[in-house]
Amino acid sequence: MSAAPVWSVDPRTGNPREQVAVEATAEEVDRVVRAGHAARDALADRAARAAFLRTAAELLEESGEHIIEAADAETALGPARLTGELARTAAQLRAFAEVVDEGAYLDVHIDHEDGSRTPPWPDLRRYKIPLGVVAVYAASNFPLAFSVPGGDTASALAAGCPVVVKAHPDHPATSELCASVLRRAAARTGLPEDVLTLVHGFEAGVELIRHPLVSAAGFTGSVRGGRALFDAAAARPAPIPFHGELGSLNPVVVTGTAAAERAGEIGTGLGGSMTLGVGQFCTKPGFVLVPEGAAGDQLLKTLTEAVSSTGSGVLLDHRMRDAFVTGVQERAALPDVGVPVTPGAGGEHTVSAGFLTVPAARLTAEGPHDALLEECFGPVTVIARYTSVDEIAAVLARLPGNLTATLHTATESPDPDAARLLPALTPLAGRILVNAWPTGVAVAPAQHHGGPYPATTSTSTSVGATAIERWLRPVTYQSTPETLLPPELREDNPLNLPRRVDGRRA
Amino acid sequence: MSAAPVWSVDPRTGNPREQVAVEATAEEVDRVVRAGHAARDALADRAARAAFLRTAAELLEESGEHIIEAADAETALGPARLTGELARTAAQLRAFAEVVDEGAYLDVHIDHEDGSRTPPWPDLRRYKIPLGVVAVYAASNFPLAFSVPGGDTASALAAGCPVVVKAHPDHPATSELCASVLRRAAARTGLPEDVLTLVHGFEAGVELIRHPLVSAAGFTGSVRGGRALFDAAAARPAPIPFHGELGSLNPVVVTGTAAAERAGEIGTGLGGSMTLGVGQFCTKPGFVLVPEGAAGDQLLKTLTEAVSSTGSGVLLDHRMRDAFVTGVQERAALPDVGVPVTPGAGGEHTVSAGFLTVPAARLTAEGPHDALLEECFGPVTVIARYTSVDEIAAVLARLPGNLTATLHTATESPDPDAARLLPALTPLAGRILVNAWPTGVAVAPAQHHGGPYPATTSTSTSVGATAIERWLRPVTYQSTPETLLPPELREDNPLNLPRRVDGRRA
Repeated sequence: MSAAPVWSVDPRTGNPREQVAVEATAEEVDRVVRAGHAARDALADRAARAAFLRTAAELLEESGEHIIEAADAETALGPARLTGELARTAAQLRAFAEVVDEGAYLDVHIDHEDGSRTPPWPDLRRYKIPLGVVAVYAASNFPLAFSVPGGDTASALAAGCPVVVKAHPDHPATSELCASVLRRAAARTGLPEDVLTLVHGFEAGVELIRHPLVSAAGFTGSVRGGRALFDAAAARPAPIPFHGELGSLNPVVVTGTAAAERAGEIGTGLGGSMTLGVGQFCTKPGFVLVPEGAAGDQLLKTLTEAVSSTGSGVLLDHRMRDAFVTGVQERAALPDVGVPVTPGAGGEHTVSAGFLTVPAARLTAEGPHDALLEECFGPVTVIARYTSVDEIAAVLARLPGNLTATLHTATESPDPDAARLLPALTPLAGRILVNAWPTGVAVAPAQHHGGPYPATTSTSTSVGATAIERWLRPVTYQSTPETLLPPELREDNPLNLPRRVDGRRA
Repeated sequence: MSAAPVWSVDPRTGNPREQVAVEATAEEVDRVVRAGHAARDALADRAARAAFLRTAAELLEESGEHIIEAADAETALGPARLTGELARTAAQLRAFAEVVDEGAYLDVHIDHEDGSRTPPWPDLRRYKIPLGVVAVYAASNFPLAFSVPGGDTASALAAGCPVVVKAHPDHPATSELCASVLRRAAARTGLPEDVLTLVHGFEAGVELIRHPLVSAAGFTGSVRGGRALFDAAAARPAPIPFHGELGSLNPVVVTGTAAAERAGEIGTGLGGSMTLGVGQFCTKPGFVLVPEGAAGDQLLKTLTEAVSSTGSGVLLDHRMRDAFVTGVQERAALPDVGVPVTPGAGGEHTVSAGFLTVPAARLTAEGPHDALLEECFGPVTVIARYTSVDEIAAVLARLPGNLTATLHTATESPDPDAARLLPALTPLAGRILVNAWPTGVAVAPAQHHGGPYPATTSTSTSVGATAIERWLRPVTYQSTPETLLPPELREDNPLNLPRRVDGRRA
C-alpha cells in the first residue's frame, strides 16, 4: 500500500496547489518519536536550548517572506495578519528563551536537614524535569503561532522536551517550511535536528497519542477532535497529560448602564472583534447579552452597520465553510430567533458575516435554543436580549467553560450591576475582560489562555510564560551528596537560580 | 430498600465492632455535594480558612486519645504509630494554614499596560482561584494523615475548596470521629460545617466522581480502584482532574562498592524499612537490586536476621491478608525464586514478614517473572541479584513509575557506578534517595510525593506545600478597573502578597 499524499489546497478556489508530503505510517511515527526520545539528553542543556529558541526566531524571521507567502496561499488569512502572526511567533520563541535563562520555572526548593522537626526532616531538594517527548497537534486558524513553531512547541522545547508536531491539514506546506527552519536552528546550535519532527495525517495523530514514549500532548482545535484525543490519552495503559484547547463561546455581558453610555462604541467594537480574521479566532465573542430597550437597540444598529460593511471572507477550508453555513442556518431557523444581518454563504468560496438575536428568556432552561450556546466557528455572533440582571445570571449559569468572558460596564458613572456580574463571569472563564474585546491574546507573563472544559482539558494555559509548566514534573532528591546532585540543586547555586530555601525565598 | 449498614471491624479478630453509619445513597451524595458547593463562598475568606485549619489541628489533638483508640481498634496499627500519625496530621493542617497566610500559592502576576510591545499589552493580572468541591478518597493505610483530616483534605480546604470525603471501609469509626472534629472546627471559626462532609460506601464513591458539581478528586489506594475512578473522571461530559496515588514498587539499588562497605548496615536498614507498619507503607522498598557475590550474600544474611526477628503482624483487613498470602505464594512458585525467609500467613489473623530472591537476569525481558515487578502490599520484598551494572540498567528500564527510587552507594570511597545509576533512577520516580530508606515522608516544602504512572495519575504531589496547586486554576483579569479587581490583584497590594510584576519578582 502506498502512502496517502498530502496536498496543499488554496481555500480561495478549493483547488489543490501542490503535493507537499505523504501521510506518516505507524512505522514512521514510531521512528520520529524514538528519534525525539534519543535527542532528549542533548536538549537537557539549558544554555543550548535558549540559544536554539533564539536562533529559531531569527531564522523564522529570515524566511518570513517565503513562509508568509505559503501561509497566505494555504489559509487566505492575508499577508498583514500573517506578518503580525510571524512577529508574534518569533517573539514567543524569544520569550521562552528568557524563561529558560531565568530558571524560575524550575521551581527550586531546598529544605536543609532539620532534626528539630517531628519526625526529623532529611535534606530535600526539589526542581522540575522535562516529561519527555511531547506531541503537538497544530491548530487550523493560526498556521504559525499555534502550529509548528507556536506556543506549544516553544514551551515544550523550552522545558527540554523533544517535540513531534502533527501538522494541520489546512497548511501542510507552511508546516513543512517551519519544521525545516526549526530543524536548521537546532543543527546550527549543535542540537540534533530530531528535537523537532513533523508528521502528517489523521491516523498518524492517533498513533502519536498512543505511543509509549510520548509523555504529554498539546492540542488546539475542535471539541470533537480534541475530545477524541483526550480520551485516547486517558485510555493508555499509562495515561499522559493532554493539554487541549477545544472550544469557547466567549460570552460578553453589556450592562444597561454601559449600553446607555456608549451603545455605538460597543456595537462597533463588537462588530470588529467578531469578524476579525473572518471570525476564526478561538476568542471570538460568540454570545453577547444586550439589554432590551432603546440603548440595546442602538447597539444593534451600530453592530448592523459594522457587520454589513464587512466584506465577505474566505474560511480556512471548504469543510469549515460548509459547517458555518449549516450551523447558522440551523440556528436561524429556531423560533424567536431574529437575523438582522444574515450570515452564511457569500460567493462560491466565501462567507459573509452576520448575527442572530434571541430573547434571553429562551436560554434560561434546557431546550433546542441550547444550540445558540455552542461555538459556531466563523463570522457570526448571537445577541441575547435580556430584561433583568437575574435573567443574565440565569443564562450565565447555563454556559459551558470558556477561554474568556467579558463585561462591558459604565466608565463615566457608577454601574450598580458590575460588582454582581464580574463574580458571575469569573467561574466561566480563564480570562476576564472589562470594557475590552477578547480577540488578541498578549504573550505576557500574566496571560492565561485556558479555561474550564471545553475551553481547556486541563487547568493550564497555552499562552504566556507559565505554559512551560505543562511539560515538567517535580523530582525531589533526598539526602543526596553534593557530588551526585544536578547543578540546579547544589548548595552554592552555581547556576544562580531563583529558589526557596527552608520555606523562604532566597 | 433500606440503606446498607457500615460496620467497624477489628482486624485482630475479624469480628465486627459496631455499626458506625449507613452507606450514602445517590440522593445523599447529591445533597452533600450541593451543601459543599453552597459553602464555597464562605471558604473564600483566606483568614477564616487559615483559622479553620489551625482550629482543626487543635481539636484533633484535643480528641487525640479517643481518635487513636478508635483507629487502633479498626486498623491494628498500634498506638505509637497512630500517635505519630496524629501529630503529623495536625502539623500538616498547620503547615497549610501557613501556606494560606503567606499567599505565594496564589501565584500573583501583574503585567502593566505596555504600548511599546507589538502588539501592545493590556493590563493583565493573574492569580489562582479554587476549583470548587473536591472529592477525597481516603487511604486504608493512613487512617489520619491520608484520610479524613489528611493531606488531600488539608490542601483542598487551604485552596478554598469544600471537601467531600469518601471514607475508607477499614476505618469508618475513625473517619466519623475526624469528620465531626473538622466540622466542629469549621463552626467554631464561623464557617459552614458543610465545608467538609463524609460519605461511606463503594457506590457513593462512584456517584461522587460523576457528580457535575465535583470539580477535582484526590485518591490514595490501589491501582485497580484508582484506575477505575480515574477512568470515570476522564469519561465525564466535562472531565475533571484526578490526582491519584495508585501504587509503587520503590526500587532500591545497592552498588557493589556499597555492599562491600556496609552490607550489614544496609541489610538491617532494609529489614526495618520493608517491615515498618507491617509493610503497609506506600513507600515500602519492594524491589532491591543486590550484587551477586560475598558482599551481597552478607547483606542477605543480615536481612534474614532482621526479618526473622520481626514478629508477626496484623494487616489492615482480612481481604488484604488473603491478597498478601496469595501474592507471595504465586511469586515464590516462580522458577529460580528463592525464599530465604518465608512471608505469608502467620497466625489465624496475622501475617509474617519475609523476602524472595531472584536472579536479575530473569527480569531483563518480559515473562512470568514480571509479577515480581508489581507491588505486593504487606511485609515482603524481592531481592534481585545482579552480575553487572548493565544488568541493573536493563532491569530499571523495565520498571513502571514509582513514588521513590533509592541508591545505596559507597560513603567512604569513590563509587564508580553512582554517577551512572542516579540518572537511571531519576526517570523512574518522584523522589530519589541516596543512602536512606524511602519509608517516612517529611511534610516539608521541598517534598514531592508522587511519580510517573502508576505512582500518580498526574504530575502533582500529595504531600508538602505544593500539594495545594492541585485544587486551583489561574484566572487573568484584563483591563479591569481597580474597584472591580479582587484585593489580591489590586495595585497597592493591600494583602501584602508576594508577586511578580512586569515579569520580575516584586
